[in-house]
Amino acid sequence: MAERKYALGIDYGTESARAVLVDVASGKEVASAVYEYSHGVITDRLPGTKTRLPAHDWALQDPQDYLRALDATVPAVLKKAKVKGRQVIGIGTDFTACTMLPVQADGTPLCALKEFRANPNAWVKLWKHHAAQPEADLINQTARQLDEAWPTRYGGRISSEWFFPKALQILDEAPEVYRAADRLIEAADWIIWQLTGRETRNLCTAGYKAIWSKRDGFPRREFFAALSPDFADVVDAKMSRQVIALGSRAGELTEKMAKRLGLAPGTAVAAGNVDAHVAVPACTVTGPGKMVMIMGTSICHMVCGTEEKHVPGQCGVVEDGILPGLYGFEAGQSAVGDIFAWFARTCVPAEYAAEAKKKKVSVHDLLTRKAAAYRPGQTGLVALDWWNGNRSVLVDADLTGLMLGMHLGTRPEEMYRALIEATAFGTYKIIRTFEQHGVAVDEIYCCGGLPERNDLLMQIYSDVTGREFKIARSAQTCALGSAMHAAVAAGRAAGGYDTIHEAAQRMAGIRAKTYKPDAAAHAVYEKIYAEYDALHDTFGRGANDVMKRLKALKGVE
Amino acid sequence: MAERKYALGIDYGTESARAVLVDVASGKEVASAVYEYSHGVITDRLPGTKTRLPAHDWALQDPQDYLRALDATVPAVLKKAKVKGRQVIGIGTDFTACTMLPVQADGTPLCALKEFRANPNAWVKLWKHHAAQPEADLINQTARQLDEAWPTRYGGRISSEWFFPKALQILDEAPEVYRAADRLIEAADWIIWQLTGRETRNLCTAGYKAIWSKRDGFPRREFFAALSPDFADVVDAKMSRQVIALGSRAGELTEKMAKRLGLAPGTAVAAGNVDAHVAVPACTVTGPGKMVMIMGTSICHMVCGTEEKHVPGQCGVVEDGILPGLYGFEAGQSAVGDIFAWFARTCVPAEYAAEAKKKKVSVHDLLTRKAAAYRPGQTGLVALDWWNGNRSVLVDADLTGLMLGMHLGTRPEEMYRALIEATAFGTYKIIRTFEQHGVAVDEIYCCGGLPERNDLLMQIYSDVTGREFKIARSAQTCALGSAMHAAVAAGRAAGGYDTIHEAAQRMAGIRAKTYKPDAAAHAVYEKIYAEYDALHDTFGRGANDVMKRLKALKGVE
Repeated sequence: MAERKYALGIDYGTESARAVLVDVASGKEVASAVYEYSHGVITDRLPGTKTRLPAHDWALQDPQDYLRALDATVPAVLKKAKVKGRQVIGIGTDFTACTMLPVQADGTPLCALKEFRANPNAWVKLWKHHAAQPEADLINQTARQLDEAWPTRYGGRISSEWFFPKALQILDEAPEVYRAADRLIEAADWIIWQLTGRETRNLCTAGYKAIWSKRDGFPRREFFAALSPDFADVVDAKMSRQVIALGSRAGELTEKMAKRLGLAPGTAVAAGNVDAHVAVPACTVTGPGKMVMIMGTSICHMVCGTEEKHVPGQCGVVEDGILPGLYGFEAGQSAVGDIFAWFARTCVPAEYAAEAKKKKVSVHDLLTRKAAAYRPGQTGLVALDWWNGNRSVLVDADLTGLMLGMHLGTRPEEMYRALIEATAFGTYKIIRTFEQHGVAVDEIYCCGGLPERNDLLMQIYSDVTGREFKIARSAQTCALGSAMHAAVAAGRAAGGYDTIHEAAQRMAGIRAKTYKPDAAAHAVYEKIYAEYDALHDTFGRGANDVMKRLKALKGVE
Repeated sequence: MAERKYALGIDYGTESARAVLVDVASGKEVASAVYEYSHGVITDRLPGTKTRLPAHDWALQDPQDYLRALDATVPAVLKKAKVKGRQVIGIGTDFTACTMLPVQADGTPLCALKEFRANPNAWVKLWKHHAAQPEADLINQTARQLDEAWPTRYGGRISSEWFFPKALQILDEAPEVYRAADRLIEAADWIIWQLTGRETRNLCTAGYKAIWSKRDGFPRREFFAALSPDFADVVDAKMSRQVIALGSRAGELTEKMAKRLGLAPGTAVAAGNVDAHVAVPACTVTGPGKMVMIMGTSICHMVCGTEEKHVPGQCGVVEDGILPGLYGFEAGQSAVGDIFAWFARTCVPAEYAAEAKKKKVSVHDLLTRKAAAYRPGQTGLVALDWWNGNRSVLVDADLTGLMLGMHLGTRPEEMYRALIEATAFGTYKIIRTFEQHGVAVDEIYCCGGLPERNDLLMQIYSDVTGREFKIARSAQTCALGSAMHAAVAAGRAAGGYDTIHEAAQRMAGIRAKTYKPDAAAHAVYEKIYAEYDALHDTFGRGANDVMKRLKALKGVE
């Protein structure tokens, strides 16, 4: 009997990294290990220094944590599963994005150098670093002035989280760091460089975060020059125009890294990727019209189509960006689980906390049980799910939450239910907008923490949208997706697969239990959705800009 | 030295009655006693029977509780203060209204008779009995159809809490009770009947609750006939067209009652009155343009003017209804303290409850302290204070609450502050509406539980309205006001006063501490009020009737 073959998937998240060892033939996840980053998300003081970050919207990381994660998890999963290094045919990774850093020509992060250690702009800017808003504003404004074509692919404007705002912030605030940086690179690609000894740039982050497209490449030099003369050559001087496809082999594991991790030198390493996007095939989805939703603190919606379309609020459409041969569309809701967490932390009375403790369930479980006793419409409440702005159809970070319908008898679980419903309406709005703009959404697949934990929520989403919700079999979909890409990078000859479609067929699965819409519930929710939609437009499209005016007033002394 | 003279004020509230013995010369409150009604508010089962009330919007009382209150409190205050019965020169009372009952010709309540004991319609209908809504709807609709003049005095329509809806409910649901009732009477007048042996009808309840005016009397017979032929003669058959002025002497204490209570026979008894209205002179107010606000679970706003005006949302304008010679205007907010209580009960996390306990303060105090740390506008929140509908300018019970501006960092104390501000905006709206319609509001005086307890709230009300808020000296303003009316009923010859103005000058007072508006805070609040006002009109005046539609959906199975 031939030795079993395994693929290693490593999912770099916000607070930790997770390695999962997957049986290539069956998709069985045989072992996993998690490493919490020693410096986590740096929002206050730079580690090992006295330097405090300039403002509260900064979010940095230490690149050494990404290497420590490899050390801590890879040998551990091999040991747990009693798998030999040579049985691992490929390594795949996925990363938060845009999470980027300035490095030297050999890949050394500038923040590792003594002279730059105390400079915040030398560190990794994590995806949720929001301090590059002035640069994002300049980029969007300049794009409008110069009538650039690319904004239509990104819902009209790009976010401060993206690559060029972050790069431009380095130039603006720390020109010495910018000058010293031989390369500016996504952490997703930097980790591949560390594994393979070779710099590559993956299509997914380039397309979704760095305004690259297969057809047009990056924005033109004149555009960058208009932002700042010193920024004109950012692509050619600090990046690369060579972008490699997803699932392709970025290179092979170096001798040194192989030894360090207990793997075989020459093991295939897949191109870097984004956490959300690798989850798509891990939900069995390899064709158009099937939306994958990663449901957690926020929701990321991804769907592939056969044509490029420009949908209001889409985060991006990227050819080959999710699956080869298809246009990958991404949209999102900026807060979902985060809103429920806010509610549980802020609005749940002591007696509920005591009851949850007594029943040995979480406060969320207790609220869910109580909320499940209500029929659709019975609470009389409706909410706008904009606790963290709106990055869906409206793409407006200055919008805020709203709840309406409260009376003296309103109970916490009713408000909790209204918040769940509001996030479901937000998803429904996204689906309808895609459809209205020619992107089919025929099926829905879910993964992430929420579907695991909350039956009521899943049923409400199904009832609101009038669609069946299928759930990924794996509870670690991103890491599985990375392992699948690893199997493709290794290829059939090495015991893997030639295409992500084959890998999905063999390695991915969905659960037997799905959530099907109740027609009567859907009919009621259509009525409440009409109310949500009207409020959405009143407060989101300028009829009443009260949210922005109140936000502006907050700053008034 | 002449013996000191005292006046007795008895305040009949919703859950209890309070007697206060007041030194007529100084207004000093020398003793007080409270009696909790043995049957409280009857909402479920009739006492001593197996009869359950038909619906949850019923609220009844037992008239015997009103007599038990006299027995329990009057001898007690005399004893406490070591005052002899003969030193008490007058008795004044005030009552919740409309609180009404059917009685026999001798004043015996029908619910005291064996044959009617199990009939809910034979009992006292408390002010907050809301089961006569169909009758109120019919009355309002018929008034419109017949183009009656009186609705303009009452903001366009009357409430189900009023006298004729309640009377008509008896006829509709229990014609045998209606037939057996020789009289239908306010409890405010029934208690005077018990004290004096003589039926009288006071101007305040007649004017504010039974559509009576000095100029036009009651609605015409044709109107009542249009409601039901059997209701045509309700006034002449069951009520009285003789209405006596406030502060007038309704009669004298009977021998029997004097003996029972330890008072002197022949002691002056003042005309019945309404709890809110007697508070006006007890706040020192005896002239036009001075608004008195009773601030508690709800707020009642009263102000006198020299001309009849028709102000949107006014509960009523009654000539001589509050002070002789002036038009008394009443308006109100249906929930204020009730909203804060809802919030404290529903939305305050366990850690806050623990912190309050540790600091030995109430949850309200803790929230107030935390909320006080914010500048006006700093929370970024705005709310509509319609948790119990709107009975102010809009007079619409189907409106519900709204809060807007929440984000993931919003704290409970910020929402608490926003709710306080919302109720202040509600009061500001009432003041501005009075002024826009020709009723001057030059000064503001407050009494009730909230001014006692909440410094922050009072300052916010002052900052929002841009006005000084003065607080009544007495913490039992209603009972004091009744005692003042007692002193007037007794008259100067007996050691009292000839007018309520004299009584107010001698017996009432305000506190040294007042709340003055901060100009900068007021300027910010003007901006937030503009937002409140816009939301008020959007959701309250038909631009978006989402609140009503959601309320309608609640009933859908």
